Amino acid sequence: MASTGPKESASNNPGLQTPPQVTKGYFMQQTCFRIKDPKISLDFYSRILGMSLLKRIDVPELKFTLYFMGYEDVSTAPSDRIDRTVWTFSKPATIELTHNWGTESDPEFKGYHTGNSEPLGFGHIGITVDDTFKACERFASLGVEFAKTPEDGFAFIKDPDGYWIEIFDLVNIRDVVKDVA
Amino acid sequence: MASTGPKESASNNPGLQTPPQVTKGYFMQQTCFRIKDPKISLDFYSRILGMSLLKRIDVPELKFTLYFMGYEDVSTAPSDRIDRTVWTFSKPATIELTHNWGTESDPEFKGYHTGNSEPLGFGHIGITVDDTFKACERFASLGVEFAKTPEDGFAFIKDPDGYWIEIFDLVNIRDVVKDVA
Repeated sequence: MASTGPKESASNNPGLQTPPQVTKGYFMQQTCFRIKDPKISLDFYSRILGMSLLKRIDVPELKFTLYFMGYEDVSTAPSDRIDRTVWTFSKPATIELTHNWGTESDPEFKGYHTGNSEPLGFGHIGITVDDTFKACERFASLGVEFAKTPEDGFAFIKDPDGYWIEIFDLVNIRDVVKDVA
Repeated sequence: MASTGPKESASNNPGLQTPPQVTKGYFMQQTCFRIKDPKISLDFYSRILGMSLLKRIDVPELKFTLYFMGYEDVSTAPSDRIDRTVWTFSKPATIELTHNWGTESDPEFKGYHTGNSEPLGFGHIGITVDDTFKACERFASLGVEFAKTPEDGFAFIKDPDGYWIEIFDLVNIRDVVKDVA
C-alpha cells in the first residue's frame, strides 16, 4: 500500500474521516465500571491516585450509587446539588464508579470481570503521572498490586476490583515507545 | 448516620481521603478497549462521534496496533513520530482502541465482551454533546444502534463492537438527574 504523510493520515487508515462540524464541542466525559466496595475504592482512587469525589448520585429505587471521581478542584464545585451534577458533567475525563448495593458484604459475590481474561474486552485506564518510577515506588509502598512493573517496560497497577491502570509519564513514554511509535 | 456538609464530603463517604500533594499534576489520560475491525471503528469514532486519530502505534512483534482517538486538534500535533506520541500522552481523555491483527477477517472470532452482560465489569464511556436529542437523531439517521434512547431518560448508543456510550448534554442532564442528584 502506498502510504503518504504521517502514519495517522486518513490515506493510511481506511475508515478514518475528518470529524464533521456538527460534533464540535463534544468531549469524552466519563469512563464507567462497576465496583464491589465503595469504601475500598474511594480510598484507592483518592488517597493513592489523588482523585476527588466530584459527585455522588444515589438511586435507591434501583439500589445503586454512582461515584464520579476526577482530577478537579472540588472547592470550586457549586453547593447546589443539581448544579454540582451539571458541573461534574462539564468536566472531561472522569471515572464513574458504579456500586450495586450489597456486593461489599455478599459472601456469594464473585467480583467483577476486568476484561483482561476471557471473555476479553475492556483493557484499562491510563494515568499520566509526573514520574513513573517514583509513582510506582510509592504505589508499591502503599501495598498496591502490580500487573506489570516499570521494569517490564510498561507499568500497570490494579485497582481494588482488579481493573488495570497503566502508569506513564511524558519523559519515560519517549523511551517506552521509541521502537514502535 | 449523621451526615454533615454536601453528600460528597469525606464524613459522608467512608474511605474517601483528601488527595495527597504527591499526586498533583496526575491526569486521566486514556481508556483502552479492544476492537475487532479498525476500518469500522475508525469510521465510527471519527465520522459519527467526531474524534481524530491522535496517534497510531504498531507493534508487529506482538501483532497489534493501538489507535489513540480524541477530541484534539491534530493540526497542532508535532510531525516527529515520537514527539507526536508524547503530545498524545499529554492529552487527557483519549480512547485507546486496541486491534489484535486478524480478528477482522477471522470467521472463528466471536467478538469482544462489553462488560454489560455476565460476567459484568466495565460499563460504558460517556460523551458530553451539545444537544442529546439532536445528536441522537443524527446517530439514528446514520444507522447507529441504541441500547437506550433519550426517551428512556438516559441515552446509550453502541459502538461497532457493542460497547456502550452514554450521550448527555449540560441542559438535559439537569432534568435526568433532578430526582436523584
